[in-house]
Amino acid sequence: MKLGVCYYPEHWPEEHWREDAAMMRALGVSMVRIGEFAWSRIEPAPGRFDWGWLDRAVAVLAEAGLGIVLSTPTATPPKWLVDLRPDILPFDQHGHPRRFGSRRHYCFSSRAYRAESRRVTEAVARRYGEHPAVILWQTDNEYGHHGSDESFSPDAVSAFRDWLAARYRSVAALNDAWGTVFWSQEYASFAEVDPPQATVTEANPSHRLDWRRFCSDQMCAFNRDQVDILRKFSPGRPVTHNFIGDFIRLDHRKMGRDLDYASWDSYPIGLLSEGIASEGEKIRRLRYGDPDFAAFNHDVFRACAPKWGVMEQQPGPVNWANCNAAPAAGVVRLWTWEAFAHGAGFVSYFRWRQVPFAQEQMHAALLATDRTPQPVCDEIRRVAEEVAAFPDFEKVRSRIGLLMDYPSLWQLEIQPHGNKDGPLGPARICYRACRMLGQSVDMVFPDDDFDGYDLILVPAVTILTDALVGKLARSGAVILATALSGAREETGRTSAPLPPGPLAALLGTRVLSFESLPKDVPVVVKTPDLSLAGHVWRERIETSAEPWGWFEDGSPAQVKSGNFRYLAYWPDETSWQIILQQLLDERGVPHWHTGPDLRLVHSGELVFAFNYGPDTEDLGARAIGPSDQKWLLGGPCLPPAGVAAWKAERPRKQADTPGPGSPG
Amino acid sequence: MKLGVCYYPEHWPEEHWREDAAMMRALGVSMVRIGEFAWSRIEPAPGRFDWGWLDRAVAVLAEAGLGIVLSTPTATPPKWLVDLRPDILPFDQHGHPRRFGSRRHYCFSSRAYRAESRRVTEAVARRYGEHPAVILWQTDNEYGHHGSDESFSPDAVSAFRDWLAARYRSVAALNDAWGTVFWSQEYASFAEVDPPQATVTEANPSHRLDWRRFCSDQMCAFNRDQVDILRKFSPGRPVTHNFIGDFIRLDHRKMGRDLDYASWDSYPIGLLSEGIASEGEKIRRLRYGDPDFAAFNHDVFRACAPKWGVMEQQPGPVNWANCNAAPAAGVVRLWTWEAFAHGAGFVSYFRWRQVPFAQEQMHAALLATDRTPQPVCDEIRRVAEEVAAFPDFEKVRSRIGLLMDYPSLWQLEIQPHGNKDGPLGPARICYRACRMLGQSVDMVFPDDDFDGYDLILVPAVTILTDALVGKLARSGAVILATALSGAREETGRTSAPLPPGPLAALLGTRVLSFESLPKDVPVVVKTPDLSLAGHVWRERIETSAEPWGWFEDGSPAQVKSGNFRYLAYWPDETSWQIILQQLLDERGVPHWHTGPDLRLVHSGELVFAFNYGPDTEDLGARAIGPSDQKWLLGGPCLPPAGVAAWKAERPRKQADTPGPGSPG
Amino acid sequence: MKLGVCYYPEHWPEEHWREDAAMMRALGVSMVRIGEFAWSRIEPAPGRFDWGWLDRAVAVLAEAGLGIVLSTPTATPPKWLVDLRPDILPFDQHGHPRRFGSRRHYCFSSRAYRAESRRVTEAVARRYGEHPAVILWQTDNEYGHHGSDESFSPDAVSAFRDWLAARYRSVAALNDAWGTVFWSQEYASFAEVDPPQATVTEANPSHRLDWRRFCSDQMCAFNRDQVDILRKFSPGRPVTHNFIGDFIRLDHRKMGRDLDYASWDSYPIGLLSEGIASEGEKIRRLRYGDPDFAAFNHDVFRACAPKWGVMEQQPGPVNWANCNAAPAAGVVRLWTWEAFAHGAGFVSYFRWRQVPFAQEQMHAALLATDRTPQPVCDEIRRVAEEVAAFPDFEKVRSRIGLLMDYPSLWQLEIQPHGNKDGPLGPARICYRACRMLGQSVDMVFPDDDFDGYDLILVPAVTILTDALVGKLARSGAVILATALSGAREETGRTSAPLPPGPLAALLGTRVLSFESLPKDVPVVVKTPDLSLAGHVWRERIETSAEPWGWFEDGSPAQVKSGNFRYLAYWPDETSWQIILQQLLDERGVPHWHTGPDLRLVHSGELVFAFNYGPDTEDLGARAIGPSDQKWLLGGPCLPPAGVAAWKAERPRKQADTPGPGSPG
Repeated sequence: MKLGVCYYPEHWPEEHWREDAAMMRALGVSMVRIGEFAWSRIEPAPGRFDWGWLDRAVAVLAEAGLGIVLSTPTATPPKWLVDLRPDILPFDQHGHPRRFGSRRHYCFSSRAYRAESRRVTEAVARRYGEHPAVILWQTDNEYGHHGSDESFSPDAVSAFRDWLAARYRSVAALNDAWGTVFWSQEYASFAEVDPPQATVTEANPSHRLDWRRFCSDQMCAFNRDQVDILRKFSPGRPVTHNFIGDFIRLDHRKMGRDLDYASWDSYPIGLLSEGIASEGEKIRRLRYGDPDFAAFNHDVFRACAPKWGVMEQQPGPVNWANCNAAPAAGVVRLWTWEAFAHGAGFVSYFRWRQVPFAQEQMHAALLATDRTPQPVCDEIRRVAEEVAAFPDFEKVRSRIGLLMDYPSLWQLEIQPHGNKDGPLGPARICYRACRMLGQSVDMVFPDDDFDGYDLILVPAVTILTDALVGKLARSGAVILATALSGAREETGRTSAPLPPGPLAALLGTRVLSFESLPKDVPVVVKTPDLSLAGHVWRERIETSAEPWGWFEDGSPAQVKSGNFRYLAYWPDETSWQIILQQLLDERGVPHWHTGPDLRLVHSGELVFAFNYGPDTEDLGARAIGPSDQKWLLGGPCLPPAGVAAWKAERPRKQADTPGPGSPG
Repeated sequence: MKLGVCYYPEHWPEEHWREDAAMMRALGVSMVRIGEFAWSRIEPAPGRFDWGWLDRAVAVLAEAGLGIVLSTPTATPPKWLVDLRPDILPFDQHGHPRRFGSRRHYCFSSRAYRAESRRVTEAVARRYGEHPAVILWQTDNEYGHHGSDESFSPDAVSAFRDWLAARYRSVAALNDAWGTVFWSQEYASFAEVDPPQATVTEANPSHRLDWRRFCSDQMCAFNRDQVDILRKFSPGRPVTHNFIGDFIRLDHRKMGRDLDYASWDSYPIGLLSEGIASEGEKIRRLRYGDPDFAAFNHDVFRACAPKWGVMEQQPGPVNWANCNAAPAAGVVRLWTWEAFAHGAGFVSYFRWRQVPFAQEQMHAALLATDRTPQPVCDEIRRVAEEVAAFPDFEKVRSRIGLLMDYPSLWQLEIQPHGNKDGPLGPARICYRACRMLGQSVDMVFPDDDFDGYDLILVPAVTILTDALVGKLARSGAVILATALSGAREETGRTSAPLPPGPLAALLGTRVLSFESLPKDVPVVVKTPDLSLAGHVWRERIETSAEPWGWFEDGSPAQVKSGNFRYLAYWPDETSWQIILQQLLDERGVPHWHTGPDLRLVHSGELVFAFNYGPDTEDLGARAIGPSDQKWLLGGPCLPPAGVAAWKAERPRKQADTPGPGSPG
Repeated sequence: MKLGVCYYPEHWPEEHWREDAAMMRALGVSMVRIGEFAWSRIEPAPGRFDWGWLDRAVAVLAEAGLGIVLSTPTATPPKWLVDLRPDILPFDQHGHPRRFGSRRHYCFSSRAYRAESRRVTEAVARRYGEHPAVILWQTDNEYGHHGSDESFSPDAVSAFRDWLAARYRSVAALNDAWGTVFWSQEYASFAEVDPPQATVTEANPSHRLDWRRFCSDQMCAFNRDQVDILRKFSPGRPVTHNFIGDFIRLDHRKMGRDLDYASWDSYPIGLLSEGIASEGEKIRRLRYGDPDFAAFNHDVFRACAPKWGVMEQQPGPVNWANCNAAPAAGVVRLWTWEAFAHGAGFVSYFRWRQVPFAQEQMHAALLATDRTPQPVCDEIRRVAEEVAAFPDFEKVRSRIGLLMDYPSLWQLEIQPHGNKDGPLGPARICYRACRMLGQSVDMVFPDDDFDGYDLILVPAVTILTDALVGKLARSGAVILATALSGAREETGRTSAPLPPGPLAALLGTRVLSFESLPKDVPVVVKTPDLSLAGHVWRERIETSAEPWGWFEDGSPAQVKSGNFRYLAYWPDETSWQIILQQLLDERGVPHWHTGPDLRLVHSGELVFAFNYGPDTEDLGARAIGPSDQKWLLGGPCLPPAGVAAWKAERPRKQADTPGPGSPG
């Protein structure tokens, strides 16, 4: 549970560095990230490196006792490089270069840029790889941001063809996988295949799905280049990348295999403003953020690498959203503890000092541009003190697993079927329902071990393989899947002979047809004792399994068979809670009603509570909290933005194997 | 009254074909459309034709007794052709090619593609032109869809110049027609004229109008190439094209002159979702479609060729709309009968079997992907049985004609004057008012014979020639025209000396000024006994004719002179009904109040009733239906999606000449 | 106080000219603008000038006694020139030319076009420069309209680099000014700098600010070319340009230095429809226009040159807006008098006769296309008669100055911080509050003399220099500044050490942080006796000055020190009125409550009143108007669209120096 900060020594007079470092230490900060946009200072002209300033900055920070997170500078190639090799730029689908002047102006497939990335990474790694203060490496910055996951450059076209050839081996296999016989899209050779680009109407969804896979794989390959070099020249130092929250264009899990830490950049209020919540919800959550946004992403990235952390934590109003409200007092502390409760190894605030120039000059920091400390510094100092006094704990496996799969998310993005909540929508809504029942959730990926869960949720995970379904069946958990789960094969083709594909045999159920509806049209579902509702998706199924819910026309809406449950629709938030509560009761999992603002996190024998609302929460009234009055943090009355922690009275059942994430 | 189905043998194992054909026959289907996207299978490499599979498919279908509708495959040129001749691609206004990967990726003006189209059409026509099972040819597929009506390729630019030279003969005439003296737009030669393309602000509206004419003419010329070849190599077989509903970029009437059948692709629920109806209306009509959508288009295409049919009938949820709801039970039958009542020669369902791959894999079909018949099959079988037992009848001329003119629609698209309902909006709203009074309507085009109508409606038909107005005057019908009718000359110039142009003298009326208003600002019109309202458009007129309605400021809003009536505004739906009812009474035309969901169609001595709503309609309560209890279909209580038919008690007055369409 | 009209002799048969001129004179029109789109008629082929028609037109108009406003024709280069020199076209940010076919299709930086502009200007100036009837020259037409302020042509890129080199002298200075160390944006030479163009995410705001400066300067340089030539060949004749209302991409004040008259094109209803008002407000103001729109722009352009006028006055419904309503009866007269009350030298109606062709054929004029006079002619004739009988008066300095600065507006456009009201929004809302207190307002620019004002308003003028703040301090006026005022340096960097920059010392106030909020979230401010509210912006300040208002959390929201007042938020319309009223009382400035529709203008010893609403206004009830019953125009009951004028009873305090504008 370390605290960190993002720092740009190149932005400030050298005489400030030492004092800055001392102030960081005084706040309780022990790590500092530097270097990720400094290429033009490190190498001001081709091949001419200027290490002096960075050597001195590293020295000053190290002397202050700060651990250094050093970044490769590849997110911002300098102008001289763009002019020398314009083929490093990304191209849009019409063949226009996306130009210099901001950041991420490179194509992951550019052969020239791949070489440059290796060259500069090696230079930095050779210089600082063995420096004792370097405790962590960060590759690049926010891969894929601003649509940079995708480029239609000539190098990308050629790499895509190679990628396809490697995947399919024969073009006949590709034609079959994509169903190119439809609309005479057949190819005679891999050399005939272009990216899905500027087509007259929508391109083939399997073509698009493979393009997403390819784009993600190119990012992974680019990253692996850097990781290999860092491991070679900086042996024993862990490597991370700072991912983006709520971002799906990159398979974080796949890239995570090459990393020691998954880290991410958490901007709860900025992303709320830019997101799809209703205007009313945006105003209600204006200064607290969505209570499940950060938690959801914590759990995603926790599942992506052995360790994880928050590399950039919003400390005040940002500049880049539509509206940029200030967090309420205490909220930055709350966000920090929510991360630690989920097992974060570190939380690093972005940024140390507000910069008086360029794109982010209105982005708040710990210090104002004139170095006046902002009030958030008091919150950080308090967290540092609390952490120091806090017992060690372990984030262990939760009782609920939620199945995530990036190709399924891409498939749902390509063919949303009326879903206006984004590809993560189905997972988000059921994650929120779990949280509102006081549960912690683990994200589980297809190649995870599923043992020990009471419940595994499958919210419209469209691509399920036989192997995966077999693992689910053997897991001993109740498996709850919704409409569209298993509807697609890995190629993106509809599951044969019918959806839900590999689930069909287990459930004795076939999906004969599917419809999508306007969100305001409720899909009503009746059970013997409950009335449920869903929206947007509704399937007509034929089943030999036991129905446990029916649509208004009497046809089956919910079926169960063994440990498997299938919902032939998309439940709304309330119905998710009702259904989950029943299943938790079945499995003897204790649960609580948190209301809209309170949230709990279970971490081994510890329980944390967080108040994301403007009113005081009385935990006792909800039968939450220790009976013996021993609180590690807070107490039974949780003020706005309040945090509490205590030891669970009856230790929660623990899985035999440790959870995917553990604190740093 | 034939039933058909769209089939893609190339998508399925050959061993399924025979069984599929037998199942079609068992449903009552007697025709099957094939081949329209099969180029890559017919000619897998340049000049290498593979007829084997298609020969066998045709043989199997023919043996089953199915009539074959064979399509030319030109809507989807294969990749090898695009790579060989990239100049076949369409270009957007910035000169970017619209690329391979979906469909309709060709430019109608491409000389290379015109040659290729003739070559492949001749190959197919030579092969199957005399095959006894081929009962109908379809050219290409949905000309103009996805913006493919328009291309800014070099060939298109050059063809446009030739087209202009042929139209205007001298560039001085063009300059005069377009008024290029305005803003120094004058041309010294046809070679100086470009398409209206990427201009700094709006291009000259006459320039744009001629560009629309040109684009439509290029489609007609492309189609005529194919028709000529088909007629040569397949003598005696009729030719059709499958048009798009609610589409105006193609002058269907003009192309229809080259066809034997006009056919169209009817997707009432898909187009409702994609259309301009309010969200409330979309939800209300979710599973029935707009009750006037298909009827309107039936009447349009009925007027475009000697015979007509529905080539693709939506049979369930489609995949391509925003939301894709399933039709209510019975609605596919209702749609089918509505088409037959309008005189359709055939209704062909799209498609036989849901395809498990590519763009349309979520598009419902008669069979699920695993060949399980969907419930809609029962509706189709029922229709087939009903048709078999139904008496022959003839669709004859209606008592109301509605004037349609594609150049006027283009003009209204180019200069909408605040109209947010689309260029078809004015016609649609008055068509709906007729239907809500229980009327059938014929679409009449400027070169039609107008005799025999009681009423001819002119809803903002902006381009009226003297000849046309003369024919209207001689028709004996009451002519009812709204604001903007006659406001433009064929060039797109404002009618001289003033609108309503050729109507001015007949009505003794001049339009001195015109204003457009936000739709929520009502235009109130008073008559001695009624209060009417309109919206969006309001003209200030000077008239020597008799006013029969006044604006709130006392100025004339409605004038009449002889058989001509002019409304200097755009009536809303209710006011249209009030005005029409008065005129029908004047002419002794019986009418009924159908309410929002019920609709009638008069076909010679038969009357059909359709219930587009979720509640049972009591026809007797509306004084609709036979008094003698003899029903050909249905009865006095029309359930949701119900259809009734009976012989009119007092045969409706028949025109001397047969109506424009007659059943196949 | 002259009346004029815009006329296009080239559009009409020569035999109409004389009669048209006579009709103009009969209306009371004494000046006529011609020629601004006539290049293709003046020079139909390269170098071949055809002066005959224009000579005759000028002669006919001159003989009728009309003063001629002659325009250079450069807004519409003819096709032959575009074909000869395609490098005159403007380029969009992807490098696509914006093409021929409308107007303004040239790049201000094109070397070829600069030469052509000088050539054709010289030709026209030589021909007519000494003609006795030419009373005013107009350069080009509406510089910058339709996004033509900006072009990314090769010439523009090269000119931008030169401009930057001239501004910064060293690239190090540029790097420092823009803060290019951020995101490795550093440049090694001016030749490396491109325009801010097609970047991956937002470009550097200082880069963008300088691009705006450059684009504006290129327009000024282009204009200066023409002015120099006109002054040389037409000595003694004044020169103007017709600016666009509510347009900010051109620094009108800077260009105005080269002009004798600033004139602008006033379309109150057209711009209301296209603007950002709510739908409800658009409907409420449908036929009157926003009561402060024209006044605001009058005051802007009044401040931009020694004299000013309205070159194009909307006379009826236009054609180019979303909806185009007709003005209510009397409103054109009201608009005309509002302009004269503000000191306009002339008001010229656009256009004489509605044109039956091309883009603007639906744009109303004084005559219909067939030359029938529209009712607005009666209003114009009435104004002409009233003007003839009206006493001379002088528009003198107001008691309130409102600080305007184009670079600040650009800065606010580039980084709007949640402002959805546009960069002019903060100024517009406080201007309206002044008007609703019955005040006249002068726009003051940074290089103006500030003496003699009671109150100077600084509504989010982000760039304040020390020199400017010094002048404000010495002015003797109360200075009222809002949030974001002084927040930026001229480079666009955040003011050092902290905002409000140069105001900080005077106010003893530092802005420690800033947040932007959704407009629906009120920012509540309490004062001892009042409750105020703001929106969108809120600053957290630290102050040693006296607070006079507090946010809900008790932190200071309003501070004062000496004559300076600072509001750390953006007051809403009502709160602006409350605050202003207090300050006016402090300074002894009389004020009135006008309500939403009534407006007053003070011009020296005269007062004008205007009723922008559909109800009669009783001036007496508001204690407005003379007690001695002597009215120069109107009377105490102001009908809809009514105008009144009278001599102020107690002459208002006059400044020693004359106001910036004086009638022609």
